[in-house]
Amino acid sequence: AVMAQGDDVSRQMIKWCISVSVNSFIRVTALVKKTPSPVSSASIRDFELHIKKCYLVSSAMQMLPVQPKDIERPPPESAEEGQTDESGMPLVTLKTRLDNRVIDLQSECNQAIFTVSSAVEGLFEEYMRKSGSRKFNTSKMVGAATEGGAGVFEVSNYFGKKAYLTQSPQFYKQMLIAGDAESVFEIGPVFRAENSNTHRHLTEFTGLDFELVFNYHYHEVLDFAEKLIVFMVTELLSRYQDEIAVIKKYFPKAGDFKVKDGKALRLKYLDGVALLKEAGVDTSEQDAFKTDLTTAMEKQLGKIIREKYETDFYVLDEFPMAVRPFYTKVHPTNPNLSNSYDFFMRGEEIMSGAQRINEADELEAAMRAKGVDPSSEGFVDYVNAFRQGCRPHAGGGLGLNRIVQFFLGLDNVRQATPFPRDPQRLRP
Amino acid sequence: AVMAQGDDVSRQMIKWCISVSVNSFIRVTALVKKTPSPVSSASIRDFELHIKKCYLVSSAMQMLPVQPKDIERPPPESAEEGQTDESGMPLVTLKTRLDNRVIDLQSECNQAIFTVSSAVEGLFEEYMRKSGSRKFNTSKMVGAATEGGAGVFEVSNYFGKKAYLTQSPQFYKQMLIAGDAESVFEIGPVFRAENSNTHRHLTEFTGLDFELVFNYHYHEVLDFAEKLIVFMVTELLSRYQDEIAVIKKYFPKAGDFKVKDGKALRLKYLDGVALLKEAGVDTSEQDAFKTDLTTAMEKQLGKIIREKYETDFYVLDEFPMAVRPFYTKVHPTNPNLSNSYDFFMRGEEIMSGAQRINEADELEAAMRAKGVDPSSEGFVDYVNAFRQGCRPHAGGGLGLNRIVQFFLGLDNVRQATPFPRDPQRLRP
Repeated sequence: AVMAQGDDVSRQMIKWCISVSVNSFIRVTALVKKTPSPVSSASIRDFELHIKKCYLVSSAMQMLPVQPKDIERPPPESAEEGQTDESGMPLVTLKTRLDNRVIDLQSECNQAIFTVSSAVEGLFEEYMRKSGSRKFNTSKMVGAATEGGAGVFEVSNYFGKKAYLTQSPQFYKQMLIAGDAESVFEIGPVFRAENSNTHRHLTEFTGLDFELVFNYHYHEVLDFAEKLIVFMVTELLSRYQDEIAVIKKYFPKAGDFKVKDGKALRLKYLDGVALLKEAGVDTSEQDAFKTDLTTAMEKQLGKIIREKYETDFYVLDEFPMAVRPFYTKVHPTNPNLSNSYDFFMRGEEIMSGAQRINEADELEAAMRAKGVDPSSEGFVDYVNAFRQGCRPHAGGGLGLNRIVQFFLGLDNVRQATPFPRDPQRLRP
Repeated sequence: AVMAQGDDVSRQMIKWCISVSVNSFIRVTALVKKTPSPVSSASIRDFELHIKKCYLVSSAMQMLPVQPKDIERPPPESAEEGQTDESGMPLVTLKTRLDNRVIDLQSECNQAIFTVSSAVEGLFEEYMRKSGSRKFNTSKMVGAATEGGAGVFEVSNYFGKKAYLTQSPQFYKQMLIAGDAESVFEIGPVFRAENSNTHRHLTEFTGLDFELVFNYHYHEVLDFAEKLIVFMVTELLSRYQDEIAVIKKYFPKAGDFKVKDGKALRLKYLDGVALLKEAGVDTSEQDAFKTDLTTAMEKQLGKIIREKYETDFYVLDEFPMAVRPFYTKVHPTNPNLSNSYDFFMRGEEIMSGAQRINEADELEAAMRAKGVDPSSEGFVDYVNAFRQGCRPHAGGGLGLNRIVQFFLGLDNVRQATPFPRDPQRLRP
């Protein structure tokens, strides 16, 4: 916009306009004019506003804690305090960005990231509702910790009692199924009191959870869930091209997410282990059904699969029983395995799911086998839910923040979270 | 379904089938046959299944804690332990129903209620997304209590620190607006550590929150919010006729919700007070801007308005400043009033909203005027959000559970909550 002294504009007005600080909001009345030659420093080059009137809507302070123009440059996760880029401009660390999140959110990259994040949720909901599923909101405060208190946040002042924050809506989803809902989904916060300080862990994230009955085999649900992810990824790539193009300026992997032939790649866990073994990785523990894949193995497998199958989305099915929670249904013919699956994007886990035990006696035996007491306060209501008849069902829980992170190729899950929480961070 | 000994069915099979307990799931292969005369005891009267094969899918125990057929009868909130209806059948109290919520949820009435509840959320989301709004999920754990700790649940083990559960996403919604999101919405849990034991209070409920910038007047947002409710109510009445008809068998008010001419009735707070005064109510405290309407007054006003204006949805605008939170924008010409509004369904509050202060200096002064310290830990990030320029905005927070309760005319908000939480109840 340009402003020139004349009939409409006084010298005082120009002086006042110059005094308005960067980042303030103004409202102008102006004429749109074609520029004599393209303006190189603006995104709209052929037109400019000739201001007649200018009002201050909201004033920014003179000295901002972070400069908006610094925020607009790529945010390398590894930037250190005081570091500059090749041209000598300061690099803003992730910590400084998050400390000043309100200014940070104003960047074109963050605006685009959260448009995509909103869309991921919307697409999940769209897919679930089209399938006839109903949305529920289950309690986040419960009367007893279900995993012995480890990893659980405790509410100390629940009217003379203690309460605990749920680590997943798992039990409630299943109780709704036992309550004759055939398909349920929930979008809500998930709380994890785990001292994990990594690029993909948060103490609070948004879970996209679903649970469905099936007729003959849990693969009915697994098919459904694979199609869900393919639907989400495909629609994101087609509906949000503009936002992804903006994000790509800052995170080069954005937009290159591959799903070959519009289908998930499903491998058995043991076939995944075999691929790793072929690549020379020591998988003796995994072959012995003793431990899950390590994070490093998952990433390596992601690379192998991308090269071999040209896809960034793969599913591992039939995990060892030993590494899955007690409520997981055992494999019908191999007691070392289970009817359970994980979903991966770019070699990083975004979902864990399984067929669940739907008979109380079987559930109690499975709990005892894992050293869990079925009669303890945190489990009674859950186990009882299966005494009144409950159809076979399966489901899963996706992490919204991780889907956004890995789909867009962001460095850090905090970049996909408006106000992240981790062991060090409780504000803003 | 009928079963007769013959080629397909052995005597042993009949014997086994008789042994299957009530509420179990079975899968049958059967012939559909027209009945010779209508079956009076079944909902499908002209056809019956002639069973050839029968498999047990999931077995219910012989003695259920509550009988499914007892659950299917109307649930009067006032039923006492051991009470029976006119025909001598036991009435199940709300407490017993909630204690055995999984069986209780199986009733046709509850299935319909939660279909409507899922729809209310879906319609809110549909309306918000169509308007271009983006969905966010903000943190439920924060580092400092913002209201002096009263009414706030405390998380005692946040990695050596204390955290608190948010009583609303209010601050974060506004910080997102300050972060240049023009319109945001959130659906998530809201935590209230208030010892309120009423038919409409919960310690955890689902908030439907929205916040929007506006150009010239907060009534732009108020118009938007009124149309949201009218959209939701109108679509519910047309899309969910079948479910509402089922609920009406148990709660006679379901389906009679009136919105005259498809428009909200908007009254100024003082005009609402005048209506009460006309009806002979003592409103001297309200005239003096000292106190809000009492719950009894709100209900009475709801009745007066239903008779006079033929609507169950009304809005009061321009509440006294003294009864609103510090972040509320004062009325431009009358300092006793504010740019704030409440929404009512059947005379009960479902939403509170307002234009918010969008300048840090003004906000700090307003906080001090209400005895709140703007430099305390819980407020610093919030106040700072408005130092970098923030457009005028307004919004509101709806309670999902209350909308379902009052729209359907349920007795109790717990009936609109899958697993309710109150000062006495932390399970199931």
